[in-house]
Amino acid sequence: MTKIAIIGSGFIGRAWAITFARAGFDVALADKAPGAPEAALAYIEGVLPDLAANDLLNGASPEAVRARLSAARSYAEALEGAVHAQENAPEDLALKQALYAELDAIAAPETVLASSTSAILPSRFTETLTHRERVCVCHPINPPYLIPAVEVVPAPWTSADTMTRAADLMRAAGQSPIVMKRELDGFVMNRMQGALLEEAFRLVADGYASVEDVDIGIREGLALRWSFMGPFETIDLNAPGGVADYVARYQQIYERISPDQWRRVDWAGPVLETVLAERRARLAHDALQERQVWRDRRLMALAAHKRKADKDIGA
Amino acid sequence: MTKIAIIGSGFIGRAWAITFARAGFDVALADKAPGAPEAALAYIEGVLPDLAANDLLNGASPEAVRARLSAARSYAEALEGAVHAQENAPEDLALKQALYAELDAIAAPETVLASSTSAILPSRFTETLTHRERVCVCHPINPPYLIPAVEVVPAPWTSADTMTRAADLMRAAGQSPIVMKRELDGFVMNRMQGALLEEAFRLVADGYASVEDVDIGIREGLALRWSFMGPFETIDLNAPGGVADYVARYQQIYERISPDQWRRVDWAGPVLETVLAERRARLAHDALQERQVWRDRRLMALAAHKRKADKDIGA
Repeated sequence: MTKIAIIGSGFIGRAWAITFARAGFDVALADKAPGAPEAALAYIEGVLPDLAANDLLNGASPEAVRARLSAARSYAEALEGAVHAQENAPEDLALKQALYAELDAIAAPETVLASSTSAILPSRFTETLTHRERVCVCHPINPPYLIPAVEVVPAPWTSADTMTRAADLMRAAGQSPIVMKRELDGFVMNRMQGALLEEAFRLVADGYASVEDVDIGIREGLALRWSFMGPFETIDLNAPGGVADYVARYQQIYERISPDQWRRVDWAGPVLETVLAERRARLAHDALQERQVWRDRRLMALAAHKRKADKDIGA
Repeated sequence: MTKIAIIGSGFIGRAWAITFARAGFDVALADKAPGAPEAALAYIEGVLPDLAANDLLNGASPEAVRARLSAARSYAEALEGAVHAQENAPEDLALKQALYAELDAIAAPETVLASSTSAILPSRFTETLTHRERVCVCHPINPPYLIPAVEVVPAPWTSADTMTRAADLMRAAGQSPIVMKRELDGFVMNRMQGALLEEAFRLVADGYASVEDVDIGIREGLALRWSFMGPFETIDLNAPGGVADYVARYQQIYERISPDQWRRVDWAGPVLETVLAERRARLAHDALQERQVWRDRRLMALAAHKRKADKDIGA
C-alpha cells in the first residue's frame, strides 16, 4: 500500500491524515511533541463516524479507514518508504528552514516533500537543500477532506516531475489541485480572498453597508453560483454570447469601479470596532467554538449535496 | 390581496413575477411590447412545476401560484392599486428617465417605484420627478426566486419610509435585502464581484494560473464556506479568538498582497483570447444555452439543500 508521511499532527496534519487514509493510503503521523500523533488519532476516531454518516468515506467503514493510520515515533519512521510527506509545521520561516534541512537529510531522495504553508513561498525554505528539486507547496483549505481545492506551488528549482507527482497524488486523494506555474505571494486563493476582503472592509469602513449586509451579498448572493461554477464559468453563462459578450457588455462597470479599490483601510483600525460589535452581537465570543462545529457540519452536508448534484444533474 | 406591478416582462421581470406570486402576492405584468406579458406567463408556467418538484413554492401548487399572476394591458392597469412596482427596463439612462417620468405621473404617490437596475445610480433617473421620494433601486441577482440577496439602494432624496417599505416587502417576498445607507457605483455585490474578477483576470493574464485553476479555487475552495457564511463570518470562525484574532494573525499577508492588485488588465485585451480558448475547450459555444439550464437546475438544488440544512443543522 502506498505510504504517506504526515509531519506535524496538529489541526492541518490530522485533517490531511483523514484525507489520505479515506483515499486508501497508508498514513503515518509524526510530531516532535510526545503523544501528539496519538492525540491526533483519537481526534480522528471522533470525526470518522460523522463522515461515514454523510457517505463521505468512499463506502469504507470508520474502522477500515482508521486501520490505515498509525503513529510513528520519529520523522524517520514516518518517512521510511513514504512516497510523499505532507508537512504542517507552524508558519515560522526559521522553523521551516531548520525542519526542511532535517527532512531533506532523512527522506529518500525520491520522496516528495510538500508543505501545507499558506503564507511562505517555497523558495524561502528550500534553496540550500541537497534535494531541493523534490520540494513544493501543497496548500489546502482546512479541512481538505471537505474542501477539495489544493494549491500546488513550485519553487524556481522544483522539478516538473515533482509537480506532476504531487498533483497526481492530490487527485488520487480526491482533491482538486490548482497547479501554479510559478510561486506568487498569497498563491491563487488567498489573493482572491484578499481582493474580496479588502472591498468588504472598505464598504463597512466607508459606511455603505453593514457587516451582515456584506455577508448576505455573498452567502445569499454571489457565492451561490460560485460554489458550483467558479467566477469565470459564472460570467461565461451570464451573457447570451458567452464570456466575450459579457466583457463587451459589462467590463465598463468594473473599469469604473476598480480605481476606487486601489487603497486599503487598516483592518485593525476603527473598522475593526464596527466589525467586532456586529459579529459579537450575532455570535457571542463564548459561542465561537460551537459555531465552528456548526460550520464543519454545514460543510459536510454541502460536500454531500455537491456530490449528489454532480451525479444527478451533472458537474 | 396585496398587489405588485411588474413593469417590463423580460427575463428579470418574469423572474420577479415568480418571486412575488410564490410569496402570495397578486402580480400584474405590463410591457410596452404587445403580447410580452402573455409570453412571460407562458414561460412562467414552464418554470413553476420545476420549482414545485424542489419544494420551492412554499407548499403551493403551480396552479395556485399561476392564479395570482395576470397580464395587464397598460402600465396604468398594472399600477392600479399596487403597493410596489418593480421596473425591469433595459439599462439605458435616457430610457429610464423617460419611463420614470411616465410612471411617476400614473402611479398613486404612495406606490413605491423600485428599479432592478444593476448599473445606474437611482439619483440619475429620479431627480426631477414629482414624487421622487418614493423611488429606490431593488437590484436582484437573477433569478431572485433562487438567489435571495437584493440590494435596496436610495437616491439622496429617497425617504426613509420608502426604504423601510421596500426592504419589508422584499423580506415578505422571501428575499434577503441589503439595505444600503447611500448610493454607490456597483452597489455592494458588483463591487465585490469586480474585486474578485479583477484578480482572476490578473492571475490569468500574468500566467500564474489557468482559467480552470481560478474556477477550482473558488468552486472547490473559497465559495464552499462563503455559500453559507459570507466572508466576515468565515474569518470570524477562522482563528481561535475570532475576527480580531484573525486580523492580528493574517492581515499582514493581505497587506503585502494588496498593492500588487492596484492595477487593471484590460479584460478585452490578450487575456480574453486565453479565457475564451479555455472556456470554449470546456464548453462549446453552441452548448451555452443548455449549460444555463444546467446552472438553473444546480441553483434550484442548492436552494433546496440550503433550506434543508438551515432547518436540520441551523442557519
